[in-house]
This record gives sequence, structure tokens and C-alpha cells, in this order.
Amino acid sequence: MADLDTIVSLAKRRGFLYPSSEIYGGLGAVYDYGPLGVELKRNVRERWWNAMVREHDNVVGLDAAILMHPTVWKASGHVDAFSDPMIDDKASKRRYRADQLIEGHVDKLRAKGKDDEADAVYGRFVAALNADDPASALGQVIQDEEIKSPDSGAFDWTDVRQFNLMFETRVGAVAGEDDRIYLRPETAQGIFVHFKTVAETARQQVPFGIAQIGKAFRNEIVARQFIFRMREFEQMEMQYFVKPGEQMEAYEAWSERRMAWHRANGIRPEKLRWHEHEKLAHYADAAQDVQYEYPFGWNEVEGVHSRTDYDLSRHQEFSGKKLEYFDPQTQERYLPYVVETSVGLDRTILMVLCDAYAEEEVTNGDKTETRTVLRFHPALAPFTAAVFPLVKKGGMPEAAHKIEADLRRQFNVTYDEKGAVGRRYRRQDEVGTPFAITVDGDTLEDGTVTVRDRDSMEQDRIPAENVRRYIEDKVDAWTPAA
Amino acid sequence: MADLDTIVSLAKRRGFLYPSSEIYGGLGAVYDYGPLGVELKRNVRERWWNAMVREHDNVVGLDAAILMHPTVWKASGHVDAFSDPMIDDKASKRRYRADQLIEGHVDKLRAKGKDDEADAVYGRFVAALNADDPASALGQVIQDEEIKSPDSGAFDWTDVRQFNLMFETRVGAVAGEDDRIYLRPETAQGIFVHFKTVAETARQQVPFGIAQIGKAFRNEIVARQFIFRMREFEQMEMQYFVKPGEQMEAYEAWSERRMAWHRANGIRPEKLRWHEHEKLAHYADAAQDVQYEYPFGWNEVEGVHSRTDYDLSRHQEFSGKKLEYFDPQTQERYLPYVVETSVGLDRTILMVLCDAYAEEEVTNGDKTETRTVLRFHPALAPFTAAVFPLVKKGGMPEAAHKIEADLRRQFNVTYDEKGAVGRRYRRQDEVGTPFAITVDGDTLEDGTVTVRDRDSMEQDRIPAENVRRYIEDKVDAWTPAA
Repeated sequence: MADLDTIVSLAKRRGFLYPSSEIYGGLGAVYDYGPLGVELKRNVRERWWNAMVREHDNVVGLDAAILMHPTVWKASGHVDAFSDPMIDDKASKRRYRADQLIEGHVDKLRAKGKDDEADAVYGRFVAALNADDPASALGQVIQDEEIKSPDSGAFDWTDVRQFNLMFETRVGAVAGEDDRIYLRPETAQGIFVHFKTVAETARQQVPFGIAQIGKAFRNEIVARQFIFRMREFEQMEMQYFVKPGEQMEAYEAWSERRMAWHRANGIRPEKLRWHEHEKLAHYADAAQDVQYEYPFGWNEVEGVHSRTDYDLSRHQEFSGKKLEYFDPQTQERYLPYVVETSVGLDRTILMVLCDAYAEEEVTNGDKTETRTVLRFHPALAPFTAAVFPLVKKGGMPEAAHKIEADLRRQFNVTYDEKGAVGRRYRRQDEVGTPFAITVDGDTLEDGTVTVRDRDSMEQDRIPAENVRRYIEDKVDAWTPAA
Repeated sequence: MADLDTIVSLAKRRGFLYPSSEIYGGLGAVYDYGPLGVELKRNVRERWWNAMVREHDNVVGLDAAILMHPTVWKASGHVDAFSDPMIDDKASKRRYRADQLIEGHVDKLRAKGKDDEADAVYGRFVAALNADDPASALGQVIQDEEIKSPDSGAFDWTDVRQFNLMFETRVGAVAGEDDRIYLRPETAQGIFVHFKTVAETARQQVPFGIAQIGKAFRNEIVARQFIFRMREFEQMEMQYFVKPGEQMEAYEAWSERRMAWHRANGIRPEKLRWHEHEKLAHYADAAQDVQYEYPFGWNEVEGVHSRTDYDLSRHQEFSGKKLEYFDPQTQERYLPYVVETSVGLDRTILMVLCDAYAEEEVTNGDKTETRTVLRFHPALAPFTAAVFPLVKKGGMPEAAHKIEADLRRQFNVTYDEKGAVGRRYRRQDEVGTPFAITVDGDTLEDGTVTVRDRDSMEQDRIPAENVRRYIEDKVDAWTPAA
């Protein structure tokens, strides 16, 4: 598997991803999708939406705004509890996460072979996290262990304070009013607050789901790993509302479907696994993550959570509005339980890029060379096809453009007439274009073209008029190369 | 034409749009898209993307983040000049836009028949807007005219101050650092800052375009007219880069294409017009808007602007990076000129809703009744088809579900088995579903179904297996009813 730097470099070079505002030196932990990245992202979104909404009679969509009423985040618990413990080095004025300072200290002790001491500090660390006042307990560990600042080497710390991860802003202009609002740190609450209205206006009965794709924001102190943890990111979430007692059945069923979705996108099964949460959030009665083995280790790409009626009951309490559902079958009134599937769109993109990346030896005449290829599922590839005239004359460009125009009715297509055809194939391999159609002298004679397969590198010769149908069939029937 | 309240009410009742965080009393000038709204929005986005990106070899996509480096907004001029003149009523503590107070005063004078006085005040108003210090000049008009506060009736104002429309937040956590950033007030700057990188990585040569769909935010003081002017909204923009001197040709060509796009979406031509800007922004050498006649009057839905090299030259100056383009054909180096097409997605949705809305008298047996119908272009309709079993027994639901499943491979479909078929038709008319397929007793005998047309209300009887192709052909061939 490629290391992360290789992926980052390819992504930048070929226009999948750029650092935000790059000409100004970038903005930390924010990235922009370039011409190929945006097409890949569109395809992933589309496959998720089709799998979740279009293919399920009882799942409907929603697109709530990023800005919400501030009380939503009191009800959800984010105002009080969505924070990291931070500490400032008075010498350098730099800010650190207290828990990460202590973990770094433990790692150092282990590196020096002081395992017993490391175990003891780690034990105090875990106890501090679970203390009534974790901030001061963590601060005490840093003081007792005399942990020094990584940048200045000083041992001159402020107290530990909780730093909320929500971005805050102010809305409107009524002088004196408390107009503080937040950028949503998750999309789920937009679904919960509209649960009852959606059920009524979309004429849905429990069990049913509401699906949403949208941006969320977290003011991460230490953001890293490229697009894995960004300050601005995109979630694809579905909340499935069930009768209390029926949540485990839904949890199992959706877990299975979600894992099947990742596999159907061509992700290698051996790189995917379930990770069950050891410690459940107080509101959850079951939770597990789909993990992918990224170049930096196994990490969460999607979570499936059984959230009970926690969210709806909180919103009922804070809004004063009845959110109970009346079940016409059983004539009962209840707050539904919720099973959530929540996948990071950017994390999915990173997974798809990492999983598709391959370098392989190929023979070219007498020589052996290395080709870089992204083995995307053809339905995810930014370009489904590339169209080449063999040479830039003799009517070949015109014939190629004609095929290109026909394909564009259905697919994303690129046209390339520059350089040797072998080099053009390599350029398309590197961005994962599954099919390359070449127009040559024979095309003008008999109307046939070659279609070259990205993975096998084999070529079929077929009538130009059949190319669109040929590609459609291949995309539908595609299975990953062994 | 329906008034705005009728549209708002239908949109809410049928799940196109909800006020944000409605159970908490809403958040001013922010709306959420419900199950039908999100599908309509997806369809509009898709048609724009296909028309702009997929169908043009030399237009590529981009998806820049909402958060950008703060210097971007100094370069663009938004930090200094993107503001409204505000004034506070000291009695009520309410804040007003100074220009709107004066305009309201002028309107009142006219209503009283004092046209001469109104003209005089209006003259002073225009002079104040163009003064060196518009804020104090506007304040002076309010003082001289003794304009009273609309809510308290008091005449006790603060000074007029410029209030920046950008939402501000803070990023990161390095103590003491100036970490202020903004939510982007327009998507265009994300394109400008990446102009050179996109040209290189996507191997594009001038003339070429970069297209983007995304959210933008403006802290409007007086937001109104439903989703026409929201604090959080979505733009669909393309910046087309041309050789200086060739901008007018591009401006004309893109103007024509953009108007054709609105018409191809089925918007009535007599409700669309061009509005040329009387006063050009200092950086523009041509600008015109596509206006639609909304229930509240003619208003901008899209702008086409020839922006010269203003934006690129500002970013070159502020970033210190060379953004010049080297033209391989002419061997010249230059900053390209830019022609922008910028359409409001939410304004387009509102236009599509208003334009599609109709109430008409229909006969039902002996009775005449009114039906409400949304005459959406079938490619925009949230549901392309509805499938009904005539009755909920005798194998009809099963046969209907089979047709539904086949249609779902290609279209958004809804299934309804409740109530009389006539009522089901009305429900679908009201949300603009162009085709309703009914499975009846004959279906089980001979495999045929009826397909009822939303606009003509006529029915065709065709084999069930042909329904998908029948609808595909009808969607492709659709022209608005006269």
C-alpha cells in the first residue's frame, strides 16, 4: 500500500485535492476539491443517495441548513460537553491538548524502557479523564509529572481549560440581543428537529428513515492526516426511526447494508472490518464502526449507532413541543428509537483513493516500467472514458469528438490528443479512467475503434456506435480485478 | 400567478421547505429543504452541472471549502466594503438599515401625494449614497427629515455605522494569534485563488471555465421574501477565463446559453428578461441579470458579469504569487479576463416553484372542482412517477411494487395505495409528479397498466414492461403545455 504522502502528492498533482487558499499559504486542516476530486465526490454522493433514499420506499431525504437555532446545541449536549481540554505554554504562547501531552509523555517513557512508570502515569491519566473535573485532574498529572512544553521546553503552564470545538458566530443585528450561533458540528440534529414534520408531510410511518448529506464543522486543535480529520467536512447520515424494542433488528440490518455498500464500491474486503465500541456513549445501547486500514492504520470511516430516544426526548424537553409519534397500527403513542448510520464523505474519498492506488511493473516493448493506476470502481471514476485520436490529423480528431459528444450524454469524458498514445494511456491510468477509446485510420474506413481496459490493459475492437452501450454494460457488470 | 403566501404554504405542507429549527421558533432567514425540496434541488443542481461542466470540454469543476484564508477577503474587497449602513433606535434597541428607513420615508411621502418633497428627499438620498462618507451623510438625511422609528415611533437614533455582512468566526487555538476568519460571502473567490493550479493540473488552456456549486453566507439585516434572500444560500457559479479583448464575445455567448438554460427548464419565456446594470461595479466592463417575475416583482435570479482582470490582479497583489498565464499559441504572458455566470440555486428553486404553480377548474363527473398542479419540467420534478394499485388486494399491490422497483433503477418514484385513485392523482398533481401508473384488474390479466399524464390528465394504456422506456422518452421530448 502507498504511504499517505504518495496519495497526497498524486491528489495535488492531478487535481483531486488542493490545500485551501493555497496561494495564501493555506488554511490549516481545510482542503478544496479540484476538477477530478469534485467528480469523484459527486459519484460517491450519488451512490450513497441512491442506495439509501432512491432504493428505499421508506427513506426520504432532507437538506437542513448549517446554521440552526442555538438551543438545538444545548439540547444535543454540544454546548456543555463538546470540548477538548487545552493548556497553554506561557513561554511560547502555544496551546496544547492536555490529554495528548500526557499520552506523548507516556510514549516517551516507554521508548526509554520505563514501562512500569509509563503504566502508572497511564493509570492516573485514565482516572483523570473519568474524574468529576477532568480539566483540573489532567492539569495535576502534567504538574506532578513535570511534563515540559514540546516547543519551548519550558515547564510553565496555565490551568487546563475545556475548549469547545464548535465554531461560533453571530447572526442578525439587533443590538444587545444574545445572537450567538454555531456552525453545526454534525448534521444529525437537523434531522431530529424535523422528525415529526417530515413524518407528516412525507406521509411516512415508523419504521422510516431520513437521510441527509451536508457540511459540518469542528474547530479541531490538532487536525491532521490530510482529509481524514478536517475542520470543515461532509457527512452522509441517515436516522432510522423505529418502535422502541425493535432497534436491534434495524441496527443489524443497516449494519449489514452499510458494509455491503462499501464493498460494492470496490473496497477490498480485507481492508474493511467492524470495530465495536468498548465504551458506549451514555445515550447509546449499541455502536460499532466500519474501519478501513488507511496508510496510517485502522480508522473509522462510518459509524452505526443505536441512539435510543435520547435525541428526540432532549428536543422534546428543550423545545416544549410534543414529538411523540402516534402509531396507527397499534394505536400507541411513543417516542421512536433511532438507529443512525453516519459516514464521512471525505474519509470515504480518502479510502477510495488509498484503496484504488497501485503501482505495477508493465512491459513496454523490451523495457519494464512502472505504471501508477487508480483502480476505481468505474461508477466512481472521475472520467468514465477518455477519447483519443491516434494522430491530430486526417479526420481523426473530428471522428473522436463525435464519439466524445455521444458519450457525454451519459458519462464524464475527457478528450486528449497530445503525445504518444502510450503516454496518454498512462495519464488516464493515473487518474483511474476505466476506458480509453482510440480513433485510428481504420475507424475512418470501417467505423470501428479500440477500447482499452484500464485494469487488464487489453483492447477490444468494436463499432464506434456501440461504445456507449459497451461501457454501460461493463460498468454494470464490473467486479474488482483479483 | 399565485401570491407568495400560497407558495410558502404549499412548500411547507408538502415538504419542500421548512423554517430552520422550527420546533425552536425558527432561525431568521434560514430554511431547510424537506423530502421533496431536496429532490428538486438535486435535479436543478444536476441539470446545471451537466449543462456547464459535462457538456463543455473546456469547463471543469471545483468544490472549494466555505472557510478560506482571511486575506482572500481583504484582496476581494469584502473586508473593507461589503457592508450595510445601520442605525439603532435607542428607545427600542432595534437596528435598521439607514437606506431602507429613508426609502420607506420617501414612499410614505408619495402615498400622501407629496411627490415634490419625495423627489427632493430621494435626490438627497442618492447624493448621500455617493458621498465620501455615506454613513454620516445618510444619518444627516434621517436627522434632517426627522424620520421616526417604525417600531417605537421615537426619534432617538444613534449614528449610522457600516455593518459588515460577512459572518465572522475564529479558527484554531493558538493563544493571542489573530485567528479571525469568515464564512465566504460568495463562492467565486475559491475559483480565483485556484485559477492557476486548476489550469495546470486539469491541462486547460485559455479560454476555459471553472464551475462550482456551494454554500455562501451573508448576515442580512433585513432578510425576506422566503428563500429569495437568505442568510445561508447556495450559488452555482462559473468563471470563464479569456484573453483580454475577447471578453465581450464570451459575455454574449454565455449570456445566451444561460437564458437558454432557464427556458429549457420550462420557465415561461414571458416571465424572464434581461436587465442591464445601469451602474457598473468599478471592476466590471459589462453586467446584466436574468430577472424573473416573482410574485413580489421582477428580481434577479442570475448575473452575467464581465469582471476584467480585477480579481486575479488583486490576488496577485495580495498573495505575492504570479498568477499570469502563458499562452502557448501566442507566446504571450497575461492575466486573463473573467466572464462570470452566477445563479442563485435557492432563487432558481423559488422561480421553478412559482412558475410551475397553477390552479385550474376541472370537471369530475357532474362537479367542477379546482385542482392545484405544479407543472414542473419532468426532469426537475421530485418524483418522476407515482405507482398505484387500484385497490389494496387481489395481487395489485405486488404487481405495483414490481413496477415501482423497476422504475427506481432510473427515477425517483413514490408508491401510494391510500384512498380513491382520483384523490391520489390530486396529491401527485400538487407536488408535480408528471406520470401516475395505475395497476388494475386488467394488469393481472394482460400485463397492461394506465399511465396518466399530469398536464393533459389523459391516460395511455401500455404494457407494464414498457413503462420505464415510455417515461424516458416522454421526459426527453417534453415541452411545456401551451
